Amino acid sequence: MLLKTLTQHFTNPLYLESGRILEPYDIVYETYGTLKDNKSNVVVVCHALTGSHHAAGKYEDDIKAGWWDGLIGPGKAIDTNRFFVICTNVIGSCFGTTGPISNAYPSQEPYRYSFPVISIKDMVRAQRILFDKLGIHHVQAVIGGSMGGMQALEFAVSYPDFAKKIIPIATTHATSAWAIAFNKIAREAIVKDPDFKNGYYDIKSIRQKGLTGMAIGRMAGHISFLSHDSMDKKFGREYKKDDSLFELFGKFQVESYLEYNGYNFSKWFDPLSYLYITKAINIYDLSRGFDSLKNALQNIIAEVYLISFKNDMLFPSSEMREIYDTLNQIGTTKSRFKEIDSNYGHDAFLVEIDKFEDDIRIMLDE
Amino acid sequence: MLLKTLTQHFTNPLYLESGRILEPYDIVYETYGTLKDNKSNVVVVCHALTGSHHAAGKYEDDIKAGWWDGLIGPGKAIDTNRFFVICTNVIGSCFGTTGPISNAYPSQEPYRYSFPVISIKDMVRAQRILFDKLGIHHVQAVIGGSMGGMQALEFAVSYPDFAKKIIPIATTHATSAWAIAFNKIAREAIVKDPDFKNGYYDIKSIRQKGLTGMAIGRMAGHISFLSHDSMDKKFGREYKKDDSLFELFGKFQVESYLEYNGYNFSKWFDPLSYLYITKAINIYDLSRGFDSLKNALQNIIAEVYLISFKNDMLFPSSEMREIYDTLNQIGTTKSRFKEIDSNYGHDAFLVEIDKFEDDIRIMLDE
Repeated sequence: MLLKTLTQHFTNPLYLESGRILEPYDIVYETYGTLKDNKSNVVVVCHALTGSHHAAGKYEDDIKAGWWDGLIGPGKAIDTNRFFVICTNVIGSCFGTTGPISNAYPSQEPYRYSFPVISIKDMVRAQRILFDKLGIHHVQAVIGGSMGGMQALEFAVSYPDFAKKIIPIATTHATSAWAIAFNKIAREAIVKDPDFKNGYYDIKSIRQKGLTGMAIGRMAGHISFLSHDSMDKKFGREYKKDDSLFELFGKFQVESYLEYNGYNFSKWFDPLSYLYITKAINIYDLSRGFDSLKNALQNIIAEVYLISFKNDMLFPSSEMREIYDTLNQIGTTKSRFKEIDSNYGHDAFLVEIDKFEDDIRIMLDE
Repeated sequence: MLLKTLTQHFTNPLYLESGRILEPYDIVYETYGTLKDNKSNVVVVCHALTGSHHAAGKYEDDIKAGWWDGLIGPGKAIDTNRFFVICTNVIGSCFGTTGPISNAYPSQEPYRYSFPVISIKDMVRAQRILFDKLGIHHVQAVIGGSMGGMQALEFAVSYPDFAKKIIPIATTHATSAWAIAFNKIAREAIVKDPDFKNGYYDIKSIRQKGLTGMAIGRMAGHISFLSHDSMDKKFGREYKKDDSLFELFGKFQVESYLEYNGYNFSKWFDPLSYLYITKAINIYDLSRGFDSLKNALQNIIAEVYLISFKNDMLFPSSEMREIYDTLNQIGTTKSRFKEIDSNYGHDAFLVEIDKFEDDIRIMLDE
């Protein structure tokens, strides 16, 4: 599969929802497949909190493929033989697009806390500017899970003409107190970690050893991605073979899992970006600036295909059903809602692709 | 109400499930009401993870009454005009009963990590020894919520003749991976807090300022006690009035709640005790030492009244129903199971007493 990572530099100001300005800024993106001459075959994929523009394929020396590789590729549900797929790293992230750890201009010092708070709307606005620059003014679809789904919805509300279809997966129209609470643990653990040094941490050391506060925060994240049932099935009460039950720090398998994944994550994800992106997620509310959710959704022209997962504790089906019901009330655009049976909780959008890939294929074909 | 706090000192060794021994040890307990001469009117109340022997009533200068004051008192569901109620602080805790922060004998230095791992069975064994000492060999009922419910079940399995009835509330027969995962966040946050100093923290400073790691851990606890719905109802997306939405550390109400309660808690609960008691909860499995849950429950002679709450994410109704179904299969003891409709999640056993106090009254009357 033809896989390209590109960077676009912008010198014009990016006007943010907060009233602040970001300038200059870079956007890093990846593309898969071939753009038709008339640019009519574009599908935009949006990533989640800790994702990146690397959604599919492998570079030389890569052990793991991109985060939605099961879905994107030749002959796959998002078929790169037909579609030209673009995934951009969002503003505020840490994989090349401008974020709090990027150097500010002209100081050439990292922004750190001087980076402006960004919103999902800002992430989408920046992508829209990139696509304009690439001469892409209309796309077949915008697809994303979790925070990616928030972006898909925001695309349809803010830029009604842009996408023919949107496919928001495992997401919501406004972040709930439950999700904000899980983010709070991570945010508090990061900020209170003495090695974080108010953002003046040693980046090299973090890449090697990780940041404990970030690891603890990620553990909270992992819980929120799973469910009571999925944890039961995955770990049960299994105890580490070589540990004694009566050792104070003897470990259950679920503890090892959280520890391993938490500390591993903290080596490759930037804690300042985590603060900024969770802030964007927390303040996400599709209705902001409108009288109501209905009022916001009335902007939408795109066909809306919603996919949720049973037992998603973070963004429960009921919240996506509310979007669907409201769209039906409005009645001006085609919409569909599918709840997928899964025990994986929120994680299903990444790990149970076989359960919804056919739906995506059909939705893109229609 | 007659309210007494007493301490009993034991010089005989307490033989623990781990094979280790605790000696000497103190048990602190509180009693309410008057013991009949024939000692036939005793009700034992067992506390949860962060509870204490102070279950009801107020001492001079107390602002808040004991943790189950709504349930225990003259004319209340656990009527102290009829019953003599005892609540003991469990082994491993930090309110007077011997725990990891108590001085070891003969060094007179705090145990810290040299304190042995204790189990729910050990907590119950220690209480049983206390009651024997008080000449109480048979009680009307053992009642408790959460970890208190685990103790009630353990009493019935380990000492079949002891209680006429047990009333386990919002609990389980074996701690799930989900609950262990939440405890993991707290345990990790405590241990990795540099001020914890591997248990050599400055106790005075903690009583004044709290321990950040403990506060973060308690935030995780608070999430596990609530549910998606209860958080929605309690906090929604309400934002602190004086904070700006686009301030990085501007706060949602749910964040303020977690922060306030987390840091406040960390001033009065000992982090070493938190490590030891969560360990006891994690390794709790009523079936340990038996072939199966059924095999364990076959020991029970007491009447078993189970109360669970809808939306309890920590110890879901399904786990209590399993106990009930298994008891019914065995068919030798009287049992009843009631699921209470509540939006409060696990917290309901403390905050929605009005929803089950009548049930307790009836269960004690029968």
